[in-house]
Amino acid sequence: MQAEIITIGDEILIGQILDSNSKFIATELNKIGVSVYQITSVQDDKEHILATLKNAQSNVDIVILTGGLGPTKDDITKLTLAEYFNDTLKLNNNVVEHIKAMFAKINYPFTEVNKNQGLVPSLCTPLFNTVGTAPGMWFETNKKVVISLPGVPFEMKTLMSLSVLPKIKETFNLPYILHKTILTYGMGESMVAARIEDWEDNLPKFIKLAYLPSFGNVRLRLSAKGTNKEVLESAIKNEVEKLSVIISDIIVGFDEGETIEVVIGELLKEKNKTLAIAESCTGGSICKRITAIPGASNYFIGGVIAYNSSIKINELGVDKQLIDEFSVVSSQVAEAMAQGIQQKYQTNYAIATTGNAGPTTDDTDTSVGTVFIAIATASGVYSEEFFFGKPREKVIERATNKALEMIRKEILKN
Amino acid sequence: MQAEIITIGDEILIGQILDSNSKFIATELNKIGVSVYQITSVQDDKEHILATLKNAQSNVDIVILTGGLGPTKDDITKLTLAEYFNDTLKLNNNVVEHIKAMFAKINYPFTEVNKNQGLVPSLCTPLFNTVGTAPGMWFETNKKVVISLPGVPFEMKTLMSLSVLPKIKETFNLPYILHKTILTYGMGESMVAARIEDWEDNLPKFIKLAYLPSFGNVRLRLSAKGTNKEVLESAIKNEVEKLSVIISDIIVGFDEGETIEVVIGELLKEKNKTLAIAESCTGGSICKRITAIPGASNYFIGGVIAYNSSIKINELGVDKQLIDEFSVVSSQVAEAMAQGIQQKYQTNYAIATTGNAGPTTDDTDTSVGTVFIAIATASGVYSEEFFFGKPREKVIERATNKALEMIRKEILKN
Repeated sequence: MQAEIITIGDEILIGQILDSNSKFIATELNKIGVSVYQITSVQDDKEHILATLKNAQSNVDIVILTGGLGPTKDDITKLTLAEYFNDTLKLNNNVVEHIKAMFAKINYPFTEVNKNQGLVPSLCTPLFNTVGTAPGMWFETNKKVVISLPGVPFEMKTLMSLSVLPKIKETFNLPYILHKTILTYGMGESMVAARIEDWEDNLPKFIKLAYLPSFGNVRLRLSAKGTNKEVLESAIKNEVEKLSVIISDIIVGFDEGETIEVVIGELLKEKNKTLAIAESCTGGSICKRITAIPGASNYFIGGVIAYNSSIKINELGVDKQLIDEFSVVSSQVAEAMAQGIQQKYQTNYAIATTGNAGPTTDDTDTSVGTVFIAIATASGVYSEEFFFGKPREKVIERATNKALEMIRKEILKN
Repeated sequence: MQAEIITIGDEILIGQILDSNSKFIATELNKIGVSVYQITSVQDDKEHILATLKNAQSNVDIVILTGGLGPTKDDITKLTLAEYFNDTLKLNNNVVEHIKAMFAKINYPFTEVNKNQGLVPSLCTPLFNTVGTAPGMWFETNKKVVISLPGVPFEMKTLMSLSVLPKIKETFNLPYILHKTILTYGMGESMVAARIEDWEDNLPKFIKLAYLPSFGNVRLRLSAKGTNKEVLESAIKNEVEKLSVIISDIIVGFDEGETIEVVIGELLKEKNKTLAIAESCTGGSICKRITAIPGASNYFIGGVIAYNSSIKINELGVDKQLIDEFSVVSSQVAEAMAQGIQQKYQTNYAIATTGNAGPTTDDTDTSVGTVFIAIATASGVYSEEFFFGKPREKVIERATNKALEMIRKEILKN
């Protein structure tokens, strides 16, 4: 079973927003055994939408459109769908009452422009939007389905989970797709590829491998497709076991959607240890990653964003002479920051970063991209120097990933 | 002049990565007067790529493909392009030498698999990749252009800026497109739409308006297209002036790519004021946003991520009795946190957050989504209570945006 996703909106084509909806929809469809054949982003233009929809329906059985359902004048999807299905719009009172109730709840005035959202093509089944005003729409003709969803990500996601996915499972007889992701840290794509070449060459035909490199890590994604769930599961398990032996030194985790911050959280909980973080050049990025995980309060005590040198000195107890002698971007200062927060916050582990994220060299003469990362433990402190290049956002992200990689390795030691 | 973007890679269609390349390419093309007609994401499948490329070339003059140029086995773009242009691959020694030099610089071993990256179709002009190993490719036939770029964002961006955009400007006679973005905070899309309806109805035909809502803010994007740069500039200026009168209370900024953290930075620098931030539920997210801006060290002194109550008490001087009496998620604690860090870090302004981002209600009985945000100034402290719903990431993002909105308003007062 295959699907296409069509995202509608000039804002994607002028580059103003990132199309994150397609990623979510593709992930969810794959999970239930629907592959995505193509994702197409088109303008708020009737003829273009009609042609793209027609083409998609000739390729696949399920087409999901997002966007163009808002109350404002640049949204035309609903009228276009009515034309595509030779249908007319009719006011749906249930939808109008729902919108009124939603607005009352958050104390927003109900305007005439909102009433238009109650108009839906008469042939469609409206999909009730419990978290927003624009309803979804489900059209079914000749065993083929067209689904239209609002472009607001939270509303689209809720409609997908509560209405669309269950209805697709009901309507179609689906094959089985199994994905398994292996998360590696600390080695580039081509080096990983060279190490696993023989294994890759001997993969069964029904298993595909994809490399997904990011700053400082590579995800390896295995996808198996077939009819027998047990056969697929056993084949994937077998291949992952072989792979685990070949690259045991760089594998961080195995679950889909697993991130290194989740792994760190699990390790800290399991070992009943705590963590504090002192950040200079990374500016809160490591704390943000750690606290994005539900339950982080079980092991993360807190952090200091020691941006100004005075904070490093006064709050983290870094010796001013150390800064004068070695500069604020140095292994000595990174290590003093890590030990400072570890002692003050009374934690088992601490991470510290100091560096120059750019774009200018600031008050130190360290070159842009230089970062020192320190790890403090019960038995001492150590640090490493890195050169992360530029631009600023890349330096911050690579330093954050490297710090997480280092703390994971450290926690695993004990 | 129109272009299409084709992104190649199963990883997009299985939902594993977000297609951020298209956003960047679309933005840059629009800036030089090339509109993007369509963005298409297809699998690593030869026939599918060939059909999509043929279709794109029938619609537009410029086609840009990204992805599928890496050294690993799932990358097939290069072979497919050779077939499309009835061409063969030839080893390009300049490219091979370049890759060897790149690897030597970062101490990576050069493997046989990397040598394949030196193979390029004989008809293309290779685009030298100064930051990676895979070269870009430029094909030109019958006044139409096909460009292939690596999928790694940093490499794609560098090639776009240094090679592709200049070469497109050289090759084509381009019209003029002018965009202007107005950033608003604190009002929903439909309410903004109702307020500016009359103005919108009277926009000149050559100016289009798009609404781009996000958590807590709406961007209004005006796009004018024509041949006379001065006429467009004056028309856009005129419309923005009218709009500024109608919604002066919610407008935060005007520049493309301008964010509220940039605006806050400009204001603080201009007024020579400083800022500190104490975060509980937002976990470093506000600090990260503020420090993402180059030069933030001029006004941002530092922050405390006071995740555990002990940090609120010991580091920020929050009275334990206050926590016992009102709970850690309360206006009293938020205000004490803001004043605590303001005094300790000796800043003009301070922001503090405390709340429950979920998914569970933790140790307080406050419901998930409740957040208190406090602002401390020279003349005192105040706070507001918000309910940001769920899930966790939305609560954190909305709280972060609201805190930035509040501090901007506060700085503007003086």
